[in-house]
Order: sequence, then C-alpha cells, then structure tokens
Amino acid sequence: MNISNFKGTDMQLSGERIKVTYKIFGEEEEALKMAKDICLEDTIGLPENLIPGNRISSQIKGTVDSLESPESEVYYAVVSFAVEAAEGELTQLLNVVFGNLSIKPGVQVVKIELPESLLSLYNGPRYGISGLRKLLGIQKRPLLSADLKPIGLTSEELSKLAYELALNGIDIIRDDHALTDQTFAPFDERVSMCCEAVRKANSITGFKSIYVPNITAPYDEIFLRAETAKKEGAGGLLICPGLTGFDAMRCVTDDINIALPIFSHPAFLGSFTVGPDGISHSVIYGQIVRLAGADVTIFPNYDYSFSINEKDCREIVSSAKDPLGHIKNMMPNPIGSAGLESLHENVNFYGNDVILQAGRDLYQNDIGENCIRYRNTLLGIVRK
Amino acid sequence: MNISNFKGTDMQLSGERIKVTYKIFGEEEEALKMAKDICLEDTIGLPENLIPGNRISSQIKGTVDSLESPESEVYYAVVSFAVEAAEGELTQLLNVVFGNLSIKPGVQVVKIELPESLLSLYNGPRYGISGLRKLLGIQKRPLLSADLKPIGLTSEELSKLAYELALNGIDIIRDDHALTDQTFAPFDERVSMCCEAVRKANSITGFKSIYVPNITAPYDEIFLRAETAKKEGAGGLLICPGLTGFDAMRCVTDDINIALPIFSHPAFLGSFTVGPDGISHSVIYGQIVRLAGADVTIFPNYDYSFSINEKDCREIVSSAKDPLGHIKNMMPNPIGSAGLESLHENVNFYGNDVILQAGRDLYQNDIGENCIRYRNTLLGIVRK
Repeated sequence: MNISNFKGTDMQLSGERIKVTYKIFGEEEEALKMAKDICLEDTIGLPENLIPGNRISSQIKGTVDSLESPESEVYYAVVSFAVEAAEGELTQLLNVVFGNLSIKPGVQVVKIELPESLLSLYNGPRYGISGLRKLLGIQKRPLLSADLKPIGLTSEELSKLAYELALNGIDIIRDDHALTDQTFAPFDERVSMCCEAVRKANSITGFKSIYVPNITAPYDEIFLRAETAKKEGAGGLLICPGLTGFDAMRCVTDDINIALPIFSHPAFLGSFTVGPDGISHSVIYGQIVRLAGADVTIFPNYDYSFSINEKDCREIVSSAKDPLGHIKNMMPNPIGSAGLESLHENVNFYGNDVILQAGRDLYQNDIGENCIRYRNTLLGIVRK
Repeated sequence: MNISNFKGTDMQLSGERIKVTYKIFGEEEEALKMAKDICLEDTIGLPENLIPGNRISSQIKGTVDSLESPESEVYYAVVSFAVEAAEGELTQLLNVVFGNLSIKPGVQVVKIELPESLLSLYNGPRYGISGLRKLLGIQKRPLLSADLKPIGLTSEELSKLAYELALNGIDIIRDDHALTDQTFAPFDERVSMCCEAVRKANSITGFKSIYVPNITAPYDEIFLRAETAKKEGAGGLLICPGLTGFDAMRCVTDDINIALPIFSHPAFLGSFTVGPDGISHSVIYGQIVRLAGADVTIFPNYDYSFSINEKDCREIVSSAKDPLGHIKNMMPNPIGSAGLESLHENVNFYGNDVILQAGRDLYQNDIGENCIRYRNTLLGIVRK
C-alpha cells in the first residue's frame, strides 16, 4: 500500500480560507522553511512530496499567500487554510492555527482572519458593549470594577465586602480568580449571600451594580456553577479560559438558559504571550476570546509587567471592538496596578468604552471611602 | 469598612502544603521580590500589610520555604501553599501554581509536590504502564505507534490505512491530532470503520493492536465522542488537553463507563515550554498530565525542536514513572522525526517502557513493508 494511491475526498470545497499571519524570527531561509512547515504541520502532517489526492494537495493544505520582511530577521507570513480543515469547532481552529506549531521556537501568531461562512458558525458575545451598558443602566461613562478577596474570608465577610462595594458605587463586583469553592466560602453559599448583598445595596442606591462570581471549575461542574449563579441572581459570570479551555467559555455563553454577560479572565494564559514566540496579546485576549463569546475581556494593562506594552493594549482593543461580521464587540477591562492616579491616563488611552479596576488604592484604609474616590474621579474625567 | 477588621476563617487548617519550585531569572533582589509576589499573586491578591485574619496571613498565604542560587542570575524558590487554597480542583491547583503569575516574565514552574491528602483526591491514570501492557498483551518490549493521516482522506481510505498498519504489526494506531470531525471523514463513520478494520486485522494476526481515535472536540461533544468510540470498540482515546483543558481529560479518565486508556497529546501546549519562562516540560508533560489521568503522555522528542533537549526528556520520564503515592505511572510516547534509524538510540535512552512512533520513514513507498521494518528493528533491539 502506497500513500500516493489514495485519492482523498471528492467533496467540492468552498474555496474559502482561514488566513493566519505568523511572525517568524530568523534569516530568510529559515523563514521560508517555517512558512512551509506551517502549511503542513497541523493539517496534513506529511512532507510535501507525500501528500495524496489532488484536492488535499491543492486545496486542503495550507498555502503561503505572502511573506514579507519589514526588518532584519523578522518575517510576516500569511498562510491560509481551507475552512473545511477546521469546520466549526473552536478547538480544531486553534489546532490548525497553532497546535504542534506551538512547540517550535521562533514563530508567533499575530492575526487570524475568518471568512463569513466560518464566522457565521460562532455566536460571539451575547451582549457586547451596548448590551452590557443596557443591563447596567450606564450610557456613556467608563465602568468601574473591583474584586472580592482574599481567599480565607468567610462567605459572610465576602458578602459584607460586596455590599460595601456596591453601596459606594462599584458597578461590577467580581470574585477574584482565586475564589472558587474553598470550604472557607463555598461557592453556593458565597454566591447566594453576595447576590443578596448587592441586591440590597442596589435597592438603596438605585444603581444596577452586578455581582460576577467565578465559575472556573472542574469540567463537570462549570455548568452547575453557572446555573446556581443564574438562579441566585448573579449579573455576570467570570471564567478563566486558560484553565477551562476556550470552548467551555463558548458553551456557557451560548446557553440560552444562562444568558449572562461573560467575563474572560487571563489566568494561566500568560505563557502564550510572555516571550517573543507564542500568540500575540491581541489574538489571545482579543480575537480568540471574542470568538469564544466573552462580553468582557480582562487582560493585563501595560503597567502590569514588562511583557505587555501600550502597543499590545491598543491592538487588543482593536481586536475587541473592530467590526467582525455579525459578531458583537467586547468591553476591554485592563487590570494592573490600577491605582487612583492611573484613571485619567487610562480613560484617555482606552476611551469611555472601558471597564477600569479599583485596584491598588481600594483596600488601603476605609474601603467605602476609596470606592467613592474611585467613582468620583472617574465621573469627573468623563464630565470633561 | 477596613480590610483589617475581617477575621477570616476559623476553620482548623490541615497544615499540609502544596510545594512548588520556581526557577527565577535575575539578580538576588528581583528574585526575592518575585518569590514574595508568588506567595500572594494567585491566592491572596493583596499586599502583605493588608492581609486580614491570623489564619489567612499565617497559613493560607504562600510562604518561601527556601531560595537558592546555583548559578549567576538563576534562583530556585520553593514556595508552599495551604492545600485548602486549591481544595481538590485541578483547575484551581493550576491557578494557585501559575494563574496570573504566567503573565510575568522571568519565572518558570519546575516542580510541583502534593501532600498525600491532596493526591488522594485524584485517581490518576486508570491503567498505567502495566495495565496498558496487559490490554495489548505485550510483556516487555517497547510498543510501536503510528498516526492515521492526512485530513482529506475519506473514512474508507483511513480505515484501509488502519487495517494495513494493524496487519503489519503497529501496536497503537492513533488518529493524527488534526483528524476531528471533518466532513471528509466524519467522526462516527471514521471510528466505526477504523475499529472494524483493526478488529479484522487482529483476527488474522492474533495481535491485540488498538485504534485510538481523537476525541478533542468542543466542550459539549467530548463525552459524546468518547461514548461513541467506546461503543464501536476503540482501544484508547486521544485528547489534546491544551485545547480542551486538562480537567476535561481527567473527567474522561475518571468515567467508569468509558474506562479506556487515555493518550495525552501536546498540541497547543508548546507555548508553556518554548521559552525560558512558563512551565517546564517535565511539569506539563509529566506531573500535570499524570495528575490529570493520562495513561500515555505524548511529548516532543529531543530531536523535535531547539526548545527541548535530552535533559528535558529525561525529566519528563521521571515525572511520568517515579513513585507518586497511589497514582499509577504513565507510558512515555516521544514524537519527532521518528525515523527508523532513531529506534536504537531511543530504546537505549528511554528503556523498554516506551511507545516509539513509526514516523518519517513510514509513508515512503510501501507502508506495509515499512511497518514490518519498524517492528522488526524494534524487536531486534529488545532481543539484545
């Protein structure tokens, strides 16, 4: 038996292509070799001369559409693949784009472009920026978020904290990503008490603050937690797709019975972006997260670490907000030191469509007063 | 309200600790700062002076157990955390170890040690090396695997290929990681036909070759595929935990109704290991994969790329095979160029408890003859 005897599919392919831009580091010869490897590595997995069947070799395998070198030892290769290689599965799309390729040094995914036929298979964010604003009753100003923490507090203490934050004008009160189902504050108990606390504060203030519990959980408990949160009256759900897989987030987003805004948190995703290889910030925190249905993308702000800068953050925002067929946009939610003094600069940088975090200065001395300080500062900026 | 007024949990903690060794790059001052950050970043999330409650600050937060510098600008910090911070959830364990920390440059996870109380909450591999050998009826020799590929072949062609591979002595016939549910060869049809083909070949040879389909799939289809594979008579299941999340793999492993050997594939995991930061090969492909229940860990061999070397592979094998409480060991399955000429060296390197891949030389000219060549070479090595 010889591989060249196989004819392969006789299906008529659509001709539509997934276009991926890769940044390749090295000399021209290595770049060319890498570009050709990319065409085969996660689709065909055979050397060029062994590809069987006309359609497989002419249409299904990746092709190098362009290769450009804007600077020494840096190449940008646009490689396209048949949409049929990935069908509608997000897991397989990520595999085609960067499966085994992730193991090779010297290459980074910097852009993914999907044709309408493939985009149409994804729902994307359920609410997007305007839907989230409607839920919160806030038309134009930037939103303000804060985390409940630390682990080790009891559910009662966390709900008191949630009450204080809501009462003093924090719009979005999120579980810290380290709060899961610890016996100190079990998920069901904590969520019930925090939902109740925020409802009570809202009844006093007239605000529409929301509590967003963290449903990052074992595979078989994610939906149980989402359903509990929904039942108790949570206003959104936080998930770390680096820990659950991106498709778990998509699945929660798509569930009509849950139908809550989804907040994507960057925990365990940093390794994709920390080096020159991997996947760019804008693809991970922008394109992939948006395709996977997040209404809000939480990502490290440019003051977070040396591995992310202003350019990266601008590109994330583009990927979050630029038109993308029928897919709604996402609200950016940068996190970092998030001191009071950073609010001005961050609104200038991100505009009004942003969620800013009450961070470093929130827990120093009186928490309620700090909330008011964050809120008033933010309102002051927008009035200008 | 002031954070220092919170008392935190009054639970009696076990005192048992999760110990994690981090490799930190930089000068002593930076290393010390990073070690202290690690203690707080993914558990408490507050600065040291703001940690409320005696138990939170004395027991729940991470502590630096040791900090050593074996060479210039390289430090090893052992940081321990209360087991109660992670409880039994694999997602949360990974978050405590490397959640937001993954975003920071200059730090790599090189070892995770769990106390018995936490280990006892994980089942680990269902079969392990001896269980897999029993299923395959092979006592001592190294096993031989090969991939079905490329995408674009029809189910009928792939099943003919599976038949040829099984008939000529390949022990483990796996779907390539790029085969999922494409219309060229839909999952149900392909699995049914390939299972039947391998059964038929076994009935002729008397071997116990197995077919291992790829169940990497959208979140809500993983179990459907596992169940279909089981029903059709698959001999194992391939999953890419980088795409599904590690806990999806654990969940499939733990399901008593499926109870098939689990093969963990490295697709989309490379970014954790490709740079100096991130997570070491032995932790990703050894410790985490084993805790998540893989019977076989597929990983890049030292000839695969410049980012993995012989030392890395030796460490993966240690993490896969060293005693670990009640948790069974895993069979290493290195993949790379996997030419015929590499078999000798690889058996010398890995020993008999290894699955070697019929790789580069398998698809050149007659596939059946190449299988026999791979098999005879391997049998010859063991006889020595």
